[in-house]
Amino acid sequence: MTENASPETPPAARLHLGAAYYPEHWPEERWPEDIRLMQEAGFTVARMGEFAWSTFEPAEGEFHFDWLDRAIALLAEAGIVSVLGTPTAAPPAWLTHAYPDTLAVDEHGRRAQHGNRCHYCVNSTEYHAATHRIVGALAEHFGPNPHVIGWQIDNEFNRTCYCDHCRARFQAYLAERFGTLEALNEHWTTAYWSQTYSAWEQVPIPIGYHNPGLMLAFRQFVTESYCQFQRLQIDILRPHLQPGVWITHNFMQWFDGFDHYKVAEDLDLASWDWYVGMGHVDHLTCGAAHDLVRGYKRRNFWLMETQPGRVNWKPVNTALDRGEMRTMAWHAVGHGADAVLYWQWRSALNGQEQYHGVLIDQSGQPLPIYEEVQQIGYDFENAAPILAGSKPAPAEIAILNDYDSRWAIKGQRHHEDFDYVEHLLHYYRPIALRNKPVDIIPTDAPFDQYRLIIAPALHIIDEELAERLKEFVANTRRLVITLRSGVKDEYNAMLPTRPPGPLAKIAGIEVEDYYALQDEIPVKGRRVSGTARIWAERLKPLNNITTSIASYGPYNGWLDDQSVATVNMHRQGVIYYVGAYLDDRAQQSLMDMVTGQLRIEPVMQTPLGVEACKRVNAEGEDIIILINHTAKEQSVTLPWPAHEHLLELSIEGTVRMAPYGVLVLTKRPEGPTDA
Amino acid sequence: MTENASPETPPAARLHLGAAYYPEHWPEERWPEDIRLMQEAGFTVARMGEFAWSTFEPAEGEFHFDWLDRAIALLAEAGIVSVLGTPTAAPPAWLTHAYPDTLAVDEHGRRAQHGNRCHYCVNSTEYHAATHRIVGALAEHFGPNPHVIGWQIDNEFNRTCYCDHCRARFQAYLAERFGTLEALNEHWTTAYWSQTYSAWEQVPIPIGYHNPGLMLAFRQFVTESYCQFQRLQIDILRPHLQPGVWITHNFMQWFDGFDHYKVAEDLDLASWDWYVGMGHVDHLTCGAAHDLVRGYKRRNFWLMETQPGRVNWKPVNTALDRGEMRTMAWHAVGHGADAVLYWQWRSALNGQEQYHGVLIDQSGQPLPIYEEVQQIGYDFENAAPILAGSKPAPAEIAILNDYDSRWAIKGQRHHEDFDYVEHLLHYYRPIALRNKPVDIIPTDAPFDQYRLIIAPALHIIDEELAERLKEFVANTRRLVITLRSGVKDEYNAMLPTRPPGPLAKIAGIEVEDYYALQDEIPVKGRRVSGTARIWAERLKPLNNITTSIASYGPYNGWLDDQSVATVNMHRQGVIYYVGAYLDDRAQQSLMDMVTGQLRIEPVMQTPLGVEACKRVNAEGEDIIILINHTAKEQSVTLPWPAHEHLLELSIEGTVRMAPYGVLVLTKRPEGPTDA
Amino acid sequence: MTENASPETPPAARLHLGAAYYPEHWPEERWPEDIRLMQEAGFTVARMGEFAWSTFEPAEGEFHFDWLDRAIALLAEAGIVSVLGTPTAAPPAWLTHAYPDTLAVDEHGRRAQHGNRCHYCVNSTEYHAATHRIVGALAEHFGPNPHVIGWQIDNEFNRTCYCDHCRARFQAYLAERFGTLEALNEHWTTAYWSQTYSAWEQVPIPIGYHNPGLMLAFRQFVTESYCQFQRLQIDILRPHLQPGVWITHNFMQWFDGFDHYKVAEDLDLASWDWYVGMGHVDHLTCGAAHDLVRGYKRRNFWLMETQPGRVNWKPVNTALDRGEMRTMAWHAVGHGADAVLYWQWRSALNGQEQYHGVLIDQSGQPLPIYEEVQQIGYDFENAAPILAGSKPAPAEIAILNDYDSRWAIKGQRHHEDFDYVEHLLHYYRPIALRNKPVDIIPTDAPFDQYRLIIAPALHIIDEELAERLKEFVANTRRLVITLRSGVKDEYNAMLPTRPPGPLAKIAGIEVEDYYALQDEIPVKGRRVSGTARIWAERLKPLNNITTSIASYGPYNGWLDDQSVATVNMHRQGVIYYVGAYLDDRAQQSLMDMVTGQLRIEPVMQTPLGVEACKRVNAEGEDIIILINHTAKEQSVTLPWPAHEHLLELSIEGTVRMAPYGVLVLTKRPEGPTDA
Repeated sequence: MTENASPETPPAARLHLGAAYYPEHWPEERWPEDIRLMQEAGFTVARMGEFAWSTFEPAEGEFHFDWLDRAIALLAEAGIVSVLGTPTAAPPAWLTHAYPDTLAVDEHGRRAQHGNRCHYCVNSTEYHAATHRIVGALAEHFGPNPHVIGWQIDNEFNRTCYCDHCRARFQAYLAERFGTLEALNEHWTTAYWSQTYSAWEQVPIPIGYHNPGLMLAFRQFVTESYCQFQRLQIDILRPHLQPGVWITHNFMQWFDGFDHYKVAEDLDLASWDWYVGMGHVDHLTCGAAHDLVRGYKRRNFWLMETQPGRVNWKPVNTALDRGEMRTMAWHAVGHGADAVLYWQWRSALNGQEQYHGVLIDQSGQPLPIYEEVQQIGYDFENAAPILAGSKPAPAEIAILNDYDSRWAIKGQRHHEDFDYVEHLLHYYRPIALRNKPVDIIPTDAPFDQYRLIIAPALHIIDEELAERLKEFVANTRRLVITLRSGVKDEYNAMLPTRPPGPLAKIAGIEVEDYYALQDEIPVKGRRVSGTARIWAERLKPLNNITTSIASYGPYNGWLDDQSVATVNMHRQGVIYYVGAYLDDRAQQSLMDMVTGQLRIEPVMQTPLGVEACKRVNAEGEDIIILINHTAKEQSVTLPWPAHEHLLELSIEGTVRMAPYGVLVLTKRPEGPTDA
Repeated sequence: MTENASPETPPAARLHLGAAYYPEHWPEERWPEDIRLMQEAGFTVARMGEFAWSTFEPAEGEFHFDWLDRAIALLAEAGIVSVLGTPTAAPPAWLTHAYPDTLAVDEHGRRAQHGNRCHYCVNSTEYHAATHRIVGALAEHFGPNPHVIGWQIDNEFNRTCYCDHCRARFQAYLAERFGTLEALNEHWTTAYWSQTYSAWEQVPIPIGYHNPGLMLAFRQFVTESYCQFQRLQIDILRPHLQPGVWITHNFMQWFDGFDHYKVAEDLDLASWDWYVGMGHVDHLTCGAAHDLVRGYKRRNFWLMETQPGRVNWKPVNTALDRGEMRTMAWHAVGHGADAVLYWQWRSALNGQEQYHGVLIDQSGQPLPIYEEVQQIGYDFENAAPILAGSKPAPAEIAILNDYDSRWAIKGQRHHEDFDYVEHLLHYYRPIALRNKPVDIIPTDAPFDQYRLIIAPALHIIDEELAERLKEFVANTRRLVITLRSGVKDEYNAMLPTRPPGPLAKIAGIEVEDYYALQDEIPVKGRRVSGTARIWAERLKPLNNITTSIASYGPYNGWLDDQSVATVNMHRQGVIYYVGAYLDDRAQQSLMDMVTGQLRIEPVMQTPLGVEACKRVNAEGEDIIILINHTAKEQSVTLPWPAHEHLLELSIEGTVRMAPYGVLVLTKRPEGPTDA
Repeated sequence: MTENASPETPPAARLHLGAAYYPEHWPEERWPEDIRLMQEAGFTVARMGEFAWSTFEPAEGEFHFDWLDRAIALLAEAGIVSVLGTPTAAPPAWLTHAYPDTLAVDEHGRRAQHGNRCHYCVNSTEYHAATHRIVGALAEHFGPNPHVIGWQIDNEFNRTCYCDHCRARFQAYLAERFGTLEALNEHWTTAYWSQTYSAWEQVPIPIGYHNPGLMLAFRQFVTESYCQFQRLQIDILRPHLQPGVWITHNFMQWFDGFDHYKVAEDLDLASWDWYVGMGHVDHLTCGAAHDLVRGYKRRNFWLMETQPGRVNWKPVNTALDRGEMRTMAWHAVGHGADAVLYWQWRSALNGQEQYHGVLIDQSGQPLPIYEEVQQIGYDFENAAPILAGSKPAPAEIAILNDYDSRWAIKGQRHHEDFDYVEHLLHYYRPIALRNKPVDIIPTDAPFDQYRLIIAPALHIIDEELAERLKEFVANTRRLVITLRSGVKDEYNAMLPTRPPGPLAKIAGIEVEDYYALQDEIPVKGRRVSGTARIWAERLKPLNNITTSIASYGPYNGWLDDQSVATVNMHRQGVIYYVGAYLDDRAQQSLMDMVTGQLRIEPVMQTPLGVEACKRVNAEGEDIIILINHTAKEQSVTLPWPAHEHLLELSIEGTVRMAPYGVLVLTKRPEGPTDA
């Protein structure tokens, strides 16, 4: 954390609606018309400036901010606040031309070309200097502006640089982390293949598959590089900001170029950019993405960019159905978003994203989808009073998400279809399908609020984490440990124990061997039956009370009749170990069993394709957001007589939801209905 | 055009048959035997010299032309004329070794290796100097030779170079074209992503996806580079050539590395290299390729290379069926070819193309296919009198083909299956299937001769072209405008209007939005029904008389019940707008409707797989070339009692055509038959 | 051959069992436990040292060998002998850092990174010097050690380097081979595409597809480079070795980076590394790999590495079935292996191969598969007496394998599915299926012992080989020549004759043309019927006695009714020519016909999936190794009452073999059974 840390909770008094807006692309005469159209869509916020470096600073040290002053003021007159981005994701041509080392080098050794995004070297000394200058000038100029409610640092960090300077910095990072080459050589077992390093300068940046210790350390170094680059900016900005003005970065959900928890640490607010791309919303998977981002700071977040109709970077850039943008907006809110901003308002007439979805077309007229955004504007206005200050209802279930484990597995999948995130979602989806709230959290988050923790493929584990999990699981709480957990240490070295290593004792089993599967294996159990695919482990019970939940059918001689999954008791707690990747139906049975045994209640029961999310407002009132994610009508039975806040209706019993329909409900106080 | 421009029409007095011949690969003793075999195959022309630079000039400035003098003379004695190529497609090793900058650099920054083709940098000053020297020497030496009837410049231009010299030349080209950086920055909207250029040297050669304005300009620059390189050679050659000796370049049909219309401008004659590759001839697609090349100069062309049986560069180098080479030869003639040359006569014993199809095998004996070529020789001899001076019958239909539009779409397909040429062929094929002649022409060609113009995906359009199309369509003529037309300007910037931009008013619609489709949408109309795929637009009528031809069925809420295609009147003209990519059957109905309404007549009616082409000779006599493109017998009913010129027969009524059979027919004068 | 050549036959007194063992990865306290577990598994050999350079020589010229002295001694105490590897496959970091030119350059021009294997430039002068130093020190130190029974040079040679130094060496190699540039230009027909070289320095290392002469010469140069690098080491080692101590290299079966026959020439013993990878053993294909390696030196070989359960480098790293490792061990022995070593004993805790199969897990405990290896240990002990000094029974059939032909075809497949090795196996498999022993030998091996030689796709052929084959086939022996044979000379130039060139006369046919096939062609004959695919040739008989075995059905007009395969007589010999790639069933009929006509007897008859191999021991006794390669029980009828040596049983008649069962049988002396 920087010294000028932010307030614990950013203001969430209202739901914001808005878009990314680039006034620098358009003649100033056009601005009033754009702002009029924003107003008519119910906009309350505009994001600006994050790609305007060449307009802000057309030549080294020459600054032009007046145009943005005028844009902010015009918006403010229309009741629209501004969020500003620091423009470091897109350096101007004069900068990269004068200082070519500011351009990143790819793994083939080629410098990036000017004219794209994030093509800078995150560790470049010259880039840091230029960043210092532009961010300093922006902070000084716009920091005092009362209409600027927040700042975004850079835009979608994503590049990995392989230049010589980064290599030297990486070597310095290793020297600081390991202290001695002996330590590094030991943790990475460099005696293997004569890798032994006798000088720090010998250590390469890994390209392609390499020593797992080196690969993991490099990813940790990239994380540290982005943390430093972001902190450099935050430290400049903070002293100039008004109280309550927050700093964020717009992340890309499951992107794995760096540890998002670490990079989010110095921020006040997490935000992210949600693009469906090709096809349609799968709300179980997308809900996980929202919950992931909510977990970065473990509070409400912003949807800083989302898709107006379509994108331009997929093989087929299909459009969302009529109504789907609205369900997406409410889905985000249901999972904790306090703002929904489209990217972008209107496309520049030229540039790489001409074909991206927008709200206003090249002729300056609203596109057909503009009307749907207007409806969202009305929605947000209508729901504002009830949702003021609300947050998602606290979850009783947490899923642990760990970048080190993910990177370790990604480098050595062992089965090409083994994907860490897919495997995590394999646990998330059956729970979300039942409308049971889930938090996705890092391993160092507090565990107190939960009754069930799921640790999917928690590959890398240390004693401290093992201790915290052991402590958690006592006292009637439950822990699900899955395959590939407890295998390695933080240097990506194998633990000299059988998995799940320090958790073996509480799990009551150890893994004798594991098997990557080309075919499916039959799985048979009283409550969980079906098949296993991709991965299967051979479990050896370590005590007499560990019970088998299901066992493998005949397969390869090694697995036949062995346990697939087990359950053990530990100090009134219950620990499940799941050693195979089950088929979807078996997985649903398993997770229904686990959550059912704990009596974890759903927000409400809904038919397939209808989701119920719950927020709780400052008054402690429950608000259920009910979303029909399908293109067909659905019937839903309400748990109680309700007030619906979008249409201001009283409803009860079984109601019909329109295709892509949304209801925002609170429980009607007992007494005569208003019908 | 160069100052020494060619005669308007090159001599087409006879159909030529021949092959590429490389005497420099063989001992001189062998030449007479080769020439005897050529004679026996009915050859009238040989192409030579285009890869002989190292034989012509084994060391800098040391020339050896006598061997080719002797080869030309020997051929001439056998009644075979010569076409010579300038050898610049394959520089000698001493040249690339002494001047490494003459080698092109690929987009990964690597110089080409010696030993392939077209590996030179088209803008290299040193390469220009070497070209000047060798072409000058060749021109001086062979220009006066009466047996050399034409020259080919280089061979299949195709390389794009990314070297620093090309980059500097590109920057100079931009400076000349735009005048000021302000203009460039505005046309490319470089404010977007801080791309703004403050010095010409900052502009990169685009690698991968980049600013659309930059990408299009670079392709236009490559075109200009090839024009200049070719003009350099033409300017050297021309003064040494006898009257009537023409200059050509052998193009590769739809290759899109440069604008073929611009590069063809300085030539007298267009020629091309037709390779089927894997599989068999699809005559509808191949006919379009012939028509394309005929449109480069809008006159008869040469087939400079074609496939003897098979090629060597496909995944599976299948052979043509027995008879298929003969139908190919006549297919070419039917579409306007005046010569058919095989590549090549006999393979060198070593070198990259050992496995390519030839007529004479490595042992010096004719291959089985040699007999079929002999038959073509007899055919051409028999048909020579009737075809002398003939040209394809004038077409009433033109399809516009535009490289700028094609490049713009290729850079931003938006749907991976959207291919500009495929889309153009989607309009060509249903017309060709009916044996209705079509011209494929550039947008600046004269429109007077046509009654119907089709503008498929005419993405880039300027006011002048819009005016010419408006003028054309008046007076009962008809225009078909299709999806993605009228979207951009010549800088690849979006027009600030709804598509089809300047044509919207005459089309009577504007495009509100467009949709890339993963699935098919139902399409319903009285005369056109089926489905749309890949692309669908939402059309908004601009007046009361625009009529819908068909409408979309239920789909995504945005398109449901909207018009798929419309028809509008404009000053006695009729304009169709087609907003979707129809399935093949619906497209056939649409094009039958359009051409039927205009009463455009077919050459004659034929069963599927049989094609009828018409040429008209100097006497104004119609010659129908009837080709059975299938491996089975076909029945055809003749429109009139006919004389068949290959077998010198009189035929009438319904005739049976053999598999891969060909008939060359003229109408028999009325009176008693010769039966 | 080096001057200090090895004894003709290495000692094969016993079957060895062992593993690769890396004591340098583990604390010395652990070693006794490892060695105890090895002993309990029946190990007799350990391979060590081949990746220990950085441990041997942690800084330039500073050597540490004592640790390995102690490991060898501890093993010896446990009755386990040692094989040492020279560590040149993995240079230490200080070396590659101090001398960067020792690192290989890939075809994209990038230097390899430190930290993998075989990343050295095989021609680097500095690398040769470092190799000289380390191998010299090792030889001096360990050469006298009586427990070291053999040496392995480097490890799995496989890299091709494209650096400037290699290029210069390649040019020098060409200069020496061709003498003059005129000769090179002629053999490569460089007149083609102006490739003519006027100085040796102009010749490139070919990258991608290039002149076939150049491509073949470069591969021959790589072979020569590895021969020299290996000879450098052998010449240092040999003077220090005790009599009977052998030198080997562990090859990778069909890997084609160099000519394995040439590289094996200087070795005493061939060995190889057998990895099944994904899926299961296909014993017909794997048997060919063993026979291939046996053919390198034409004697028994070692299986230097094989798979303990699974590997870590496949898309899906599946495990072998229970029992399959045991059948693999016996399969190897059946085909001539005298030792089976697993790679590796136990995985280092870090490093690229953490996930590779091992026998001891990261916790130091045996994995489930350890028990199966123990059983192999018992097996080998039980079978030791009977197998002492045995070799595979002499084969009557040989298949010719030629790297030049393979490279020539690989560079110009003409059909993407035409693979030289697949085609060779297409002839091997139907013979092996009948348990008829086959040798796979180079073209310069003696032919005397055989009755049938098969020359599959013997693309490159010279007069000497042609003469030897003609001589062989006289006197009732038989020769099968297949498609694509006799096409080229040793410079990859086409022979100026029709194929099969110098063999055409004895084959009684010549090839008029060849056809790459996308579809199947019907094939009809009295004894061989079915279809041809991939490749079909049109054969022209050259005499009256050549008989057609089968003919093509209707296809493309060129092949219809032509001969598919023929048989001709030549001086009491019989020559078959097979011009098409037959389907598997037709191929089985063909090979059954050919071997049946020669009355070549099987080892014994077995059901599908059960293999019978025969070894003959020093006493001339036949030992049949019977292997059930399937996961199901099988019934086998014995040819005679037998003694089974693994369980010490007498058995006769029809016996049931367990899934993955193995029997080692000798004929029981006549007389009363022991039942």
